[in-house]
Amino acid sequence: MRILRIFAFYFIVMKRGFGSDNHSGVSPEVLEAIAQANREHALAYGEDAYSEQTRSLFKQQFGETAEAYLVFNGTGANTLCIDAMTRSHEAVVCAETAHINVDECGSIQRVVGCRLLPVPTPDGKLTPALIQTQLHGFGFQHHSQPKVVSITQPTELGTLYTLEEIQAIAELAHANGMYLHMDGARLANAAVALERSFKEITTDLGVDALSFGGTKNGLMTGEAVVLLNPALQPDFLYRRKQAMQLCSKTRFLAVQFQAYFQHALWRKNAEHANRMAQLLHQSVKGLPHLKVVYPVQANGVFVQLPREVWKALQQRYFFYEWDESRDVVRWMCSFDTTEADIRDFVVCLTNLLQETPSLAGEEKTN
Amino acid sequence: MRILRIFAFYFIVMKRGFGSDNHSGVSPEVLEAIAQANREHALAYGEDAYSEQTRSLFKQQFGETAEAYLVFNGTGANTLCIDAMTRSHEAVVCAETAHINVDECGSIQRVVGCRLLPVPTPDGKLTPALIQTQLHGFGFQHHSQPKVVSITQPTELGTLYTLEEIQAIAELAHANGMYLHMDGARLANAAVALERSFKEITTDLGVDALSFGGTKNGLMTGEAVVLLNPALQPDFLYRRKQAMQLCSKTRFLAVQFQAYFQHALWRKNAEHANRMAQLLHQSVKGLPHLKVVYPVQANGVFVQLPREVWKALQQRYFFYEWDESRDVVRWMCSFDTTEADIRDFVVCLTNLLQETPSLAGEEKTN
Amino acid sequence: MRILRIFAFYFIVMKRGFGSDNHSGVSPEVLEAIAQANREHALAYGEDAYSEQTRSLFKQQFGETAEAYLVFNGTGANTLCIDAMTRSHEAVVCAETAHINVDECGSIQRVVGCRLLPVPTPDGKLTPALIQTQLHGFGFQHHSQPKVVSITQPTELGTLYTLEEIQAIAELAHANGMYLHMDGARLANAAVALERSFKEITTDLGVDALSFGGTKNGLMTGEAVVLLNPALQPDFLYRRKQAMQLCSKTRFLAVQFQAYFQHALWRKNAEHANRMAQLLHQSVKGLPHLKVVYPVQANGVFVQLPREVWKALQQRYFFYEWDESRDVVRWMCSFDTTEADIRDFVVCLTNLLQETPSLAGEEKTN
Amino acid sequence: MRILRIFAFYFIVMKRGFGSDNHSGVSPEVLEAIAQANREHALAYGEDAYSEQTRSLFKQQFGETAEAYLVFNGTGANTLCIDAMTRSHEAVVCAETAHINVDECGSIQRVVGCRLLPVPTPDGKLTPALIQTQLHGFGFQHHSQPKVVSITQPTELGTLYTLEEIQAIAELAHANGMYLHMDGARLANAAVALERSFKEITTDLGVDALSFGGTKNGLMTGEAVVLLNPALQPDFLYRRKQAMQLCSKTRFLAVQFQAYFQHALWRKNAEHANRMAQLLHQSVKGLPHLKVVYPVQANGVFVQLPREVWKALQQRYFFYEWDESRDVVRWMCSFDTTEADIRDFVVCLTNLLQETPSLAGEEKTN
Repeated sequence: MRILRIFAFYFIVMKRGFGSDNHSGVSPEVLEAIAQANREHALAYGEDAYSEQTRSLFKQQFGETAEAYLVFNGTGANTLCIDAMTRSHEAVVCAETAHINVDECGSIQRVVGCRLLPVPTPDGKLTPALIQTQLHGFGFQHHSQPKVVSITQPTELGTLYTLEEIQAIAELAHANGMYLHMDGARLANAAVALERSFKEITTDLGVDALSFGGTKNGLMTGEAVVLLNPALQPDFLYRRKQAMQLCSKTRFLAVQFQAYFQHALWRKNAEHANRMAQLLHQSVKGLPHLKVVYPVQANGVFVQLPREVWKALQQRYFFYEWDESRDVVRWMCSFDTTEADIRDFVVCLTNLLQETPSLAGEEKTN
Repeated sequence: MRILRIFAFYFIVMKRGFGSDNHSGVSPEVLEAIAQANREHALAYGEDAYSEQTRSLFKQQFGETAEAYLVFNGTGANTLCIDAMTRSHEAVVCAETAHINVDECGSIQRVVGCRLLPVPTPDGKLTPALIQTQLHGFGFQHHSQPKVVSITQPTELGTLYTLEEIQAIAELAHANGMYLHMDGARLANAAVALERSFKEITTDLGVDALSFGGTKNGLMTGEAVVLLNPALQPDFLYRRKQAMQLCSKTRFLAVQFQAYFQHALWRKNAEHANRMAQLLHQSVKGLPHLKVVYPVQANGVFVQLPREVWKALQQRYFFYEWDESRDVVRWMCSFDTTEADIRDFVVCLTNLLQETPSLAGEEKTN
Repeated sequence: MRILRIFAFYFIVMKRGFGSDNHSGVSPEVLEAIAQANREHALAYGEDAYSEQTRSLFKQQFGETAEAYLVFNGTGANTLCIDAMTRSHEAVVCAETAHINVDECGSIQRVVGCRLLPVPTPDGKLTPALIQTQLHGFGFQHHSQPKVVSITQPTELGTLYTLEEIQAIAELAHANGMYLHMDGARLANAAVALERSFKEITTDLGVDALSFGGTKNGLMTGEAVVLLNPALQPDFLYRRKQAMQLCSKTRFLAVQFQAYFQHALWRKNAEHANRMAQLLHQSVKGLPHLKVVYPVQANGVFVQLPREVWKALQQRYFFYEWDESRDVVRWMCSFDTTEADIRDFVVCLTNLLQETPSLAGEEKTN
Repeated sequence: MRILRIFAFYFIVMKRGFGSDNHSGVSPEVLEAIAQANREHALAYGEDAYSEQTRSLFKQQFGETAEAYLVFNGTGANTLCIDAMTRSHEAVVCAETAHINVDECGSIQRVVGCRLLPVPTPDGKLTPALIQTQLHGFGFQHHSQPKVVSITQPTELGTLYTLEEIQAIAELAHANGMYLHMDGARLANAAVALERSFKEITTDLGVDALSFGGTKNGLMTGEAVVLLNPALQPDFLYRRKQAMQLCSKTRFLAVQFQAYFQHALWRKNAEHANRMAQLLHQSVKGLPHLKVVYPVQANGVFVQLPREVWKALQQRYFFYEWDESRDVVRWMCSFDTTEADIRDFVVCLTNLLQETPSLAGEEKTN
């Protein structure tokens, strides 16, 4: 954190980089929608006409059974999805790299009180075989009962599940009396990569509850819990309120999603971010001493490169070391990334690779 | 809720009313600040330069020991303040009418796990004598240990604590090894009514932790936990994250408070709302069959009036019945309430009072 | 607690007193049953034959739908009953004097996370009218949803509900989609006072879940959660285990209840305790300066008497001040209380009443 | 569980087997102590003289800083130890096979709300190197902060830590501002195996909190939380009560430990159980098709053998399959295991190995 503080001052006006897709700002269409909603009075707490309209839009996107509940952030969306599907004596199978496992400071343990069953994976993706390793102990009172499979689409490693893969997981979950949760913090990036509608990659495959993100793709604040399985919907209003995720001036959350869905802002933004990731991938994949470690299927590029180089690059650009032990770092593209941004970044990277003294000798032998 | 749904459709474009100060929109200065912050990239999760500046502004307003942590809403601010001051085996003394007791769907019980000790009050205000009734059982292992006194300023009933009253409560709390929490969802309304700075009505009186609201006074989304007592600050970052109250694009929360503090937007808005409440109070207090039941000291007016009348008035204006058993309703004024709004409302009310058949006979005898 | 520690040393061998019915020891029949069960091996965790038999005995006592789950103590029984009937966003209506409200250090808040709605009562008994005061806010997302009515039989004040009173409460609860919980820590004392079977005073009246106590009536350790409503039974095994209330060597809990039910040990012990309370009541009710403040309907006697007297009496006998502000103290009789114990106690009390200087003048005028 | 039910009926009178050390009964000395304590009255809730004496005995066994708190069972002891050392945003490093991870139905997640960080190990033992893999993310608000290392001594796999190994772990934990917890459900078995006193294998090595078991070694009900680090002691009384682990008639828990410590019953019982495990080990290790998979260092023997054989053996003896995927089963010895028990068991096993048709051909080739 000390390191981050230094950055905070360094980038008083921070240039666009590849740190995270939530380092970007807000799409102009979203700001405009907020400004338009700022007139007269509106009921609060989701009872306003804007929220009503937004709920209808979610039904258009995900099917008639879908009920959407706006929440504040991804941690809230994930935790409340799990809360809707489990009680504390049950358990959630997830990839070891899942955001709910590693990056929410134990929110699910505290708020839901249940156990996570994280499974190591090669690429962030669960498979029926991997899930099966956790499907035991049913009926044994000492064992947290497996109740939910949680997958992230696209994964935290920038990889994508195919439709068939998700369907197979849904079938396995349902055959065991379990639910399927999808963390869709970047679902738009998946939809455009798969060239499918939201409904086709969720409801139609058997997803029961979805964390639907927008902040990483041009919204300001706000995500949605989308309960596709009607059995999960009763009582959710109370659960959300009690868990501190009910906004008062909901119109300003609601209209962001209106802007997002109308005129397909989500598609425009996600397509651009994915395309920029491909451009970045193409631009770096041939560089010496650098290895792209996961398939680039959405808007993130994960590379392994010499420590000296990525440390030096971090002096110029903020980004996360993803796995320091393996010298893997993460570069995310965003809806506002430009081709020039990538060009400048690659120039900087290329220079560092050439100038790093310790690599000089090696290169020849490579 | 069924009733509220009907309203939602009725008021597709809802006129300004007296339902709640969070039915109003956003001050133009706030929208402008948000738009200004929407350029380039910024670190997320409070590590951005905007958040840093906002933390400094809070120190200017509340003193150097104050550490402000932005959260999403009032439930989050209150619950996390209590979380910072108590463990689950401890207890919080509060007024029976406190928002934390009646209007957060049990958030504190779920998230903190502690007991509330609600005390009936005549006007929403705790007193040392009322608090004393709960200060027993210290050291008795079967009894939730009293650890926090929580007061709301101004109260949920529109009344105000004087500075001396707060100081006396702080002294009693501290003498018993307890903390003082203030729910300041409408603190600006208190500050302008008391003609004091924020620091003078909190830090200087011994408040340990403050829920600082802005949404009810012209902000869009976002409140702050302000920990005035440094002993409460360690670990708070983790507690906030785990409790799902850490925003990603924090710059858009942070700049709202910059707009709020700079050029004293908070004062302008709160003064106006308080003045409108006084105007409303003056306009209705002489009406027949109507009784103003609490002193009007901030921006709310609580009146008792015949059921037929307030029910009929609710057909035209949305507002909450406050205590249906006593026919008491609540009318809130906001930063955007106009004199014309009040005039129209009072005309409507006056007509209803005159036209209600069942009151006709009575009136003569009054 | 400091005071209690002094007592602990004072009474290295403590004489029988009136402090609590859990100050007594264990019925010989219970010890004998434990010794009998101590042979060979038995499965643990309720899977042993003893536990199986005990579950059958509970069905005999409470009807075929009853499923009994042994737990360790009354706090466990109460908290897990509530846990089986509520989720954290719901609420439990109870008397202000209920053990779950005042004497479990907030166990329900921590383990269940729900809100209690305590209601002041004149005698520890809820009534439909008193319960009605809490039955509002259904469907309002900000309000903890009333889901359970919890009554104690006999109450913490030694009073009894009639069968009709319980039935009326059950009907009110069920009519509102709520459950009825009975804290039966001393249920045997109620059964003998009402001259009814266990089933007649619980299952037949509509009780959904029962905390069934035995420790206060001659058992050593162990209480039971008896779920009379089958809808509450699924998942209970996991809830109990997770809540740390699953015993390993369950045979030693189970056989205590076998001794309790067989040959009606529960009746013998409770009848005796109740009779001793009546004797104590008759022996003290005419004494000067002393007032019996609640009807003596089970095994407790609550009296108001001058502070000097009860404080002096506490030097000789351990008992609890019940309401220090009103100088009310509690005297409990137990299965092992003897007539001689009462005679000695009354002699001591009478002497104190006579010898207390400050009462001398008063007495004449009485 | 269906399988277990069948067993419950099968073994109405169950012979002594190797299912678990908590399938055994109670040492006669313990029953006698309970009977002796059953006279007159005693204060409840740990305020009795018996409990006071027992607390002193724990100080004799563990040193003057040790404060012992009796609880009901191992889940309670473990969960409350962790509760005393962590808040919900923190994390506990443990072996993947730790009882707190796999066999308490998520008790720590529900009651403490924190994250566990389980680490795969070859033999149930953590090492500094294995622990180091989890010691990152300090100060990063998204990451549950590592706060406790929890080890089991002897481990769930029947292996032992040496004194030096524990000391090294304690030093690593303390150097990182963390606490060391020891799950000592079978600590007596470790003490006799290591030929050291309780203090030498806990307090003297830097253990901060200990779950001290007795039920698996001849007690009836009851374990102890022993807080060796005084910093952990404040508030524990309330935490225990709120977590439903405070017994009322504490004398009957307390005297079990008096019997346990006096005349070293713990040593006698544990030495016997360990010796029986050695005998069992020696008797089976040379058998064909059978492999002892972990060092036999306490009272458990873990063997791998053909599925047909262990399934057939389970028809005669109850025991747990430990890892069905690897055909590993667990056989536990107890204080009441006899040499004849082992002889009979080995005869039965040997016959099965010889009679199993599918093994006949194999044997020759081996």
